[in-house]
Amino acid sequence: MILGNARLATMRPGDAPYGLVDRGAVVVEGERIAWAGPEADLPDGTASLPRQDLGGRLVTPALIDCHTHVVFGGQRAREFEMRLGGASYEEVARAGGGIVSTVAATRAASEDALVAAALPRIDQMLAEGVGTLEIKSGYGLDIDTELRMLRAARRIGRERNVHVVTSFLGAHATPPEYKGRDDAYLATQVLPALRAAHAEGLVDAVDGFCEGIAFSPAQIETVFKEAKALGLPVKLHAEQLSNLGGAKLAARYGALSADHLEYLDDAGAQAMAAAGTVAVILPGAFYTLRETQAPPIAALRDAGVEMAVATDCNPGSAPMTSLTLAMNMACTLFRLTPEEALAGSTRIAARALGLSDRGMIATGLRADLAVWQAEEPAELSYRIGATPLHARIIGGRADG
Amino acid sequence: MILGNARLATMRPGDAPYGLVDRGAVVVEGERIAWAGPEADLPDGTASLPRQDLGGRLVTPALIDCHTHVVFGGQRAREFEMRLGGASYEEVARAGGGIVSTVAATRAASEDALVAAALPRIDQMLAEGVGTLEIKSGYGLDIDTELRMLRAARRIGRERNVHVVTSFLGAHATPPEYKGRDDAYLATQVLPALRAAHAEGLVDAVDGFCEGIAFSPAQIETVFKEAKALGLPVKLHAEQLSNLGGAKLAARYGALSADHLEYLDDAGAQAMAAAGTVAVILPGAFYTLRETQAPPIAALRDAGVEMAVATDCNPGSAPMTSLTLAMNMACTLFRLTPEEALAGSTRIAARALGLSDRGMIATGLRADLAVWQAEEPAELSYRIGATPLHARIIGGRADG
Ligand SMILES: [Zn+2]
Ligand SMILES: [Zn+2]
Repeated sequence: MILGNARLATMRPGDAPYGLVDRGAVVVEGERIAWAGPEADLPDGTASLPRQDLGGRLVTPALIDCHTHVVFGGQRAREFEMRLGGASYEEVARAGGGIVSTVAATRAASEDALVAAALPRIDQMLAEGVGTLEIKSGYGLDIDTELRMLRAARRIGRERNVHVVTSFLGAHATPPEYKGRDDAYLATQVLPALRAAHAEGLVDAVDGFCEGIAFSPAQIETVFKEAKALGLPVKLHAEQLSNLGGAKLAARYGALSADHLEYLDDAGAQAMAAAGTVAVILPGAFYTLRETQAPPIAALRDAGVEMAVATDCNPGSAPMTSLTLAMNMACTLFRLTPEEALAGSTRIAARALGLSDRGMIATGLRADLAVWQAEEPAELSYRIGATPLHARIIGGRADG
Repeated sequence: MILGNARLATMRPGDAPYGLVDRGAVVVEGERIAWAGPEADLPDGTASLPRQDLGGRLVTPALIDCHTHVVFGGQRAREFEMRLGGASYEEVARAGGGIVSTVAATRAASEDALVAAALPRIDQMLAEGVGTLEIKSGYGLDIDTELRMLRAARRIGRERNVHVVTSFLGAHATPPEYKGRDDAYLATQVLPALRAAHAEGLVDAVDGFCEGIAFSPAQIETVFKEAKALGLPVKLHAEQLSNLGGAKLAARYGALSADHLEYLDDAGAQAMAAAGTVAVILPGAFYTLRETQAPPIAALRDAGVEMAVATDCNPGSAPMTSLTLAMNMACTLFRLTPEEALAGSTRIAARALGLSDRGMIATGLRADLAVWQAEEPAELSYRIGATPLHARIIGGRADG
């Protein structure tokens, strides 16, 4: 099949911004891209293939949301309302709010219920051109529920035309029943859950939350060591609210990514660059928490750290499903360029997930494409959410 | 028809937050609400009506977006990109950017083209439960094009199941050909265009932009006088970037609303309260322009000024079609409560448009309803955009 008369934002690095090819064509063979380039240069032997005319529309790689907590029980609108009504953190906590409420609702939910609750959110993501999606555990905080979340994540990948990549995030928070006993929680729940989940084939990477209100670098290291022993790649929520040196630790373990990074220092950026660790920029949480310190974008650029952009979709700090809105926020709030934002949602997001078979329009890669009702690739970041998608093609197969 | 088993956020003022009625029902007769209340109290004689079970879903009045510039030619993604690439305002202007580029694209567009370009944006709005929509002129800045924009706005109201309210905004900016001759522009283009548009039945209200970079209070007053002579209500873009006393002027003319208001002072708020002028809060432009001075929400509350919330959908400072995102931004950035945000998108938005037949679920009002895949009315503001709509019912008629 040939997709012709398209404006291709191939996202291949090189001289052309966005790797743009005007009057381009993509030759799709099965799940793969057999060729992409100017339609005038179509290789011999393709003339007889069926051709679909895309009417000059913009085509990008299908988007990749590389950091989400989209599987969870309940929602936290009442907590949002209480805070805006002037309630203190203590009052919200006393009313059962905060992450504890999500943990309780997630523990109470069956696998079916977790999938059913997530699917409307997933469908919103797919309607914006997402083709690959990372989903974390981390609201179970006990062995059974962490595994159930990961099974729900895998099922979403079967029930929808989307590739799901899982991250085990047992080290997200210490649950109430282990209050003050973080190490016991890690030893008796997190590490056994990780081993069990890995044995079941549920874990693509291992994540953690390194922060004053979560786990110390030394505690995270116990989890990373287990991941290494199991042959699993790691990533880390680091330097979101303070600088504990989490990014440096992550880099030392060759992490795929370090995420948030508002308080990253130069040494951390250098370490990430040396390790090839991707910086995942999450403006949704920054916006919701009304943070004032932006991640050091210029320092990341100078150090040569590649930046991805993701929704961080979660019920507390980023109840958001729109990756193009995250791109707009990355530009508006953090001054990424629209080209950086789109690379961060395609080519670099693939790297953040350790995937080398997608994120660009190039020969041999997966035919995961988004066709937009747009002319300029900058339009995807320019609009405040809701950029019109014309069609989504995943593994060479169009939706609907 | 009875819509039963619904959670009604009637938005009627009173003791219950959101005017909530649990296990409620709405009796619809033709285009109107014949009765609304607890299903257990359904009046005699309704038992035989056909009943639709809403499965316990939340029902609100259909949303009302009371401030949009959704009809325009072109888009400004390249300008967005240039600015993020570090271009100065002069460089952007030299490359043809700014409002001048939208004016040029709008003048070059036929009525058909303006409608076709707007409809995808309109459809996004309707998909979020909007039932009434204000549309301004103001990118023509000559007689012909101002009228063409208003005709396009009226046509949108015929081509979609949405009620369109128009505002004439000739006094939006002075076009290049009148540079330095604001008064001549007002006298020879704006006032004649207003009279011609009114004669054609195209004008529901008269708007202006009172600002250092636009028109002075004295200049706005010439337009308001003409509006008064024609018997048309007025409204005003006021105190967005500085305090020129526009809100006071608007109040003196009994304006329906004064909009933006970041630099409003106490005297302005008092004048608005005395005149019953609604404050229209527009967080999308504040967000995009990275303003730091929020409108004085507490002072507006204290003065008893009612607040509406709108998208300000426009190609420059708010390329956004999601009213629920504007609600979230009003809460997150300006600390409105979710109840204020929803009232501002229903009951108060109706007042801002001078409409007394909608904006609440109450006997005798239009049966304009939004049925949500949600339980709590706070969910509509809690999510960062994209709150799932289950169904939209306009004038008693469901979409699709
Ligand atoms: Zn996260
Ligand atoms: Zn406006």
